Amino acid sequence: MDLKSLGEFGLIEHLTGRRKRCDEAVPVGIGDDAAVIRVPGNGSFLVCTDMLVEGIHFLRDKTPPAALGYKAMAVNFSDIAAMGGIPRQALVSVGWPADCSLAYVEEVYEGLYALADEYQVTIVGGDTVRAPFLVLNVTVLGEARERAVRRSGAKPGEKLAVTGRLGASAAGLALLLAGEEVKSRIPAEVVKDLVDAHLRPAPRVREAGLLVAAGNPSAMIDLSDGLAGDAGHLAAASGVGVLIYGDRLPVDDRTKAAAVALNKDYLEWALYGGEDYELLVTLAEERVAGVKQRLAGAGVTFSVVGEILPQKGLWLERRGKTAPLTGKGFEHF
Amino acid sequence: MDLKSLGEFGLIEHLTGRRKRCDEAVPVGIGDDAAVIRVPGNGSFLVCTDMLVEGIHFLRDKTPPAALGYKAMAVNFSDIAAMGGIPRQALVSVGWPADCSLAYVEEVYEGLYALADEYQVTIVGGDTVRAPFLVLNVTVLGEARERAVRRSGAKPGEKLAVTGRLGASAAGLALLLAGEEVKSRIPAEVVKDLVDAHLRPAPRVREAGLLVAAGNPSAMIDLSDGLAGDAGHLAAASGVGVLIYGDRLPVDDRTKAAAVALNKDYLEWALYGGEDYELLVTLAEERVAGVKQRLAGAGVTFSVVGEILPQKGLWLERRGKTAPLTGKGFEHF
Repeated sequence: MDLKSLGEFGLIEHLTGRRKRCDEAVPVGIGDDAAVIRVPGNGSFLVCTDMLVEGIHFLRDKTPPAALGYKAMAVNFSDIAAMGGIPRQALVSVGWPADCSLAYVEEVYEGLYALADEYQVTIVGGDTVRAPFLVLNVTVLGEARERAVRRSGAKPGEKLAVTGRLGASAAGLALLLAGEEVKSRIPAEVVKDLVDAHLRPAPRVREAGLLVAAGNPSAMIDLSDGLAGDAGHLAAASGVGVLIYGDRLPVDDRTKAAAVALNKDYLEWALYGGEDYELLVTLAEERVAGVKQRLAGAGVTFSVVGEILPQKGLWLERRGKTAPLTGKGFEHF
Repeated sequence: MDLKSLGEFGLIEHLTGRRKRCDEAVPVGIGDDAAVIRVPGNGSFLVCTDMLVEGIHFLRDKTPPAALGYKAMAVNFSDIAAMGGIPRQALVSVGWPADCSLAYVEEVYEGLYALADEYQVTIVGGDTVRAPFLVLNVTVLGEARERAVRRSGAKPGEKLAVTGRLGASAAGLALLLAGEEVKSRIPAEVVKDLVDAHLRPAPRVREAGLLVAAGNPSAMIDLSDGLAGDAGHLAAASGVGVLIYGDRLPVDDRTKAAAVALNKDYLEWALYGGEDYELLVTLAEERVAGVKQRLAGAGVTFSVVGEILPQKGLWLERRGKTAPLTGKGFEHF
C-alpha cells in the first residue's frame, strides 16, 4: 500500500481514523468542513485549515499573487460557510522561496487582506519562513450561527441542491492553461469571468446564512472536489446514497462555450472539476422554493441537482437512464 | 529592499504592521507567542501556528520521522505555554513529496499523536496534500489560565529568568550534523541527550502553570530564536532594555563538553543557537526563590540570567564588563 493508491481521503482516514479521541470540547472533529470547539464558559467556535502548494494547487506564473492570497483565504471562508458559520479570525503561514521579490510577497498579502477586510476578519497570527517553493497555509476561526450544519444529516427523500453554477472554475483553469489561440475563440469577458471563477471564487458566507434560515438544511458541504466527489463525501458521512440529475446541473452558457472551444465535456467539469466553492445541501423539497427566493434576492441561483436515496452509493441520471457514478472527484494523490 | 535584508521579523512587521484592525474579539493579536480570542458568551482561547519546511528547519535524512512530528507539535505547545496557557486542540497540515513512503508518513503521525496524547490534546482537523518538499504546518488552540501572559509587561528593576538549560538544542544540532569521529569523543549518552534536546524539546506547559502561580511574571516568551533574540523581542515589546548576565547562563556540562569536542563557543549557542524552547520570564526579584522551589519539585531548574533596564537596548555583562549585544538570534531569511 502506498500514498498514491490510498488517495488523499484514504490517507487521512488511515492516519487519523483509529485515533479518534473522545473529547467533550470537540463535538465535531476531523471529517467535516470545519471542527466545532467548545470553550469553558458556554461559547463555541469553528476552525478549519487549508494548505496551498506551488506546482500542486497553483502555478506561480499562471496565478497573479493577489489572486493567490485571495484564494488561500477564500477556500477557508468557504469551509466555515459550509458549517453555516461566519469567519472571524485567520492565521497565515507562508513559506517563501528566495527568488520571490518583496513586491510579490506584498501582493500576496494584498489579496489575503482584501478578502479578510471584506468579511471583517482579523488576521491574528501566522508564520513567515523560507521554503524551496511557495506554500501557504491558512487557518480560519469562525463563529457558528444557531447550529453547525454537518455533512452527516442527509435523509432519504430529501433533495440535493446547490448554490450558483457548476464547472465554471474548471473551465477557468482550462482557459488559464490554454494558449492564446484557443482563448481568442471566446469573448474576452467570458474568459475573464471563468478565470475569475477559478482564481477568485466567492465564498458563500452570506448565502450560507440565508440558506440555513430559509432551508433548514439537514447537511451541507462546500464544493472543493467536484459535485460527484463532494456529494459522495456527504452521502458517506450520512450513510445514504445520492442520485444526481445529470440533465439539470446549473452549468451556464459561458462554461458550455468554453467546453466547445476547448473540446471538453462540461459535465466532466461539473462533476469532477472541483473548486467551484458553491454550497451543496440536502433539504426537504418543500423548502426549496423559499431558499430559491431568498438567494435570488442576493443575486444567487439555487438549483436542485439530485435526491437522497436510502441505499448507499452514487448514481447519475441522464436522458432517463440511471448508472452508477464513481465518486472520485479531485484527489491530490 | 528585499526579503533577505528585511529579515523574518522585519518582513512580518512590514506586511502586517500597517494593517492592524481594531477588533474587540482579539485582545492579543499578531506579535506575541499566541493570539487571544474572545468568543461570544464570555469564553476565550489562545491560538498559534508554526510551519516547518524540509531543508530549512530540518533535514529529512537527519531527522527521524517521529521526531519531526513530535517537534512540529511541541513548538506550538511551547508557544501556548509561553502565554501561560494549556494546549487543547490541534490542526495538522502536511505536504508530502511523492518519494515519502506510507511508513514514513505513519511515523510522522506517530510523533504528532504521541505528544498530543501526552498532553490530552485532540487533533480536530488538518489538510493532507502533495508537495515537492516535506512541509508541516501545525495550528494549536489552547486554554488561557487565569490571565494570558504577554511579552510586553516587563518593567525596569525586574529580573530576567529562564527555565531549564540553554544551548543544548544548538549543541544537539551541531552533533547531528557532525561526523562519527567527532561524536566518538563524547560519551554516547551525552550525544543522545543533546540530540534529543534538539529533536524532542519538552514544551514547558506544566512549568508555565507553576511559574505563573508562584512567580506572577510580568512578561513571558519561549526561547525559539536564542536568548539574545528572544530577550530582544521581549524588551522591544515592553519598551525596556535588558542586561544579560553572561557569566551566569545555565549551560550544562554536557553542552560544554560538546562545545569543546566541536571547537565551538557554548556562549554563542546559548545566546544565538535557538530552539531551546525554555520559558524566558521577567518577574520581581523576591519571587525568584518561590519559583525556583516550585520548579525544583517538578525537576526543572530556574535561573536568573539578567535584569530589566529602563533604557532600551540589549547588553551583555561578562567578567565585570558590559557591552552592547546585537539581538540577531536565529532568523529564517
